[in-house]
Amino acid sequence: MKSLDDYIRVIPDFPEPGVLFRDITTVFQDADGMQIAIDEMQEKVKDLDFDVIAGAESRGFIYGAAMAYNLHKPLVLIRKKGKLPWKTESVDYDLEYGKATLEIHVDAVKPGQKVLLVDDLLATGGTVRAGAQLIEKLGGEVAGILVMIELKGLEGRSRLQGYRVDSVIAYEGK
Amino acid sequence: MKSLDDYIRVIPDFPEPGVLFRDITTVFQDADGMQIAIDEMQEKVKDLDFDVIAGAESRGFIYGAAMAYNLHKPLVLIRKKGKLPWKTESVDYDLEYGKATLEIHVDAVKPGQKVLLVDDLLATGGTVRAGAQLIEKLGGEVAGILVMIELKGLEGRSRLQGYRVDSVIAYEGK
Repeated sequence: MKSLDDYIRVIPDFPEPGVLFRDITTVFQDADGMQIAIDEMQEKVKDLDFDVIAGAESRGFIYGAAMAYNLHKPLVLIRKKGKLPWKTESVDYDLEYGKATLEIHVDAVKPGQKVLLVDDLLATGGTVRAGAQLIEKLGGEVAGILVMIELKGLEGRSRLQGYRVDSVIAYEGK
Repeated sequence: MKSLDDYIRVIPDFPEPGVLFRDITTVFQDADGMQIAIDEMQEKVKDLDFDVIAGAESRGFIYGAAMAYNLHKPLVLIRKKGKLPWKTESVDYDLEYGKATLEIHVDAVKPGQKVLLVDDLLATGGTVRAGAQLIEKLGGEVAGILVMIELKGLEGRSRLQGYRVDSVIAYEGK
């Protein structure tokens, strides 16, 4: 039987020379890969108590949507600046070059709710940390952070101290 | 019991004066709303024969992911220019001001596969038509187009002649 890792396509030198990009579109575009991916994400947090799933744009929406439906939880959207139509809270964060902003609707999380933050990738941790800060700005509690892929060499966990972080596949490199 | 329409937030004058924007984040951020939304999407195509679900970035990913998992189908991603890491096919299309480009991985759809194209909104039909063209460029057959919300006043169906189009909620206006 194929493991989840077998479905991931490795693309050398993307987005820049020396980087091995893990392409998860080949997971989703196989019916079994899709099933295994979501099942393994859910398995990682089966002991966790949470009220809400927050998905980060846009690959986090994929995991978040399937999990929210399966587990009968609300799905709240964390989006890039200017994409949400109503009143938002925002957090700026650093990228390798420059800055970016994430937003959430102010009514997406109610004070005291326990939120599972779901994303595709844990790299340097900047995006995920900004997502966690958004949840906390609304008075929510980050019950856990769940990603499909973790690049351990980038040490994202060091920027997420105090949070529970689960990854389905962890690679040693960058 | 609440209907799907009750979960949608209406935002006046967004993104410009005179437009009533239908915000579906309030559907997803309610566990029952999320369930009803996906169930009603699936109900619309229960008689349709298809092999693959294509979701258009980024709200199409939400419906597409939950449906692909539930129905054990592959999910392929239609994304904005520059987001897909591997070899792509692309289609340009017109926006109200200017142009945009959608892309798909060249191996996302195999020749002869029947594809259900899923998106959030059918407005003028430009985005959805570009998505359908991408599928056809790869040799796939568009088995159907499925959207959550249709704005009938914008006459998107007139740009999608020859395709089966289903919407869960159709509003008369723009």
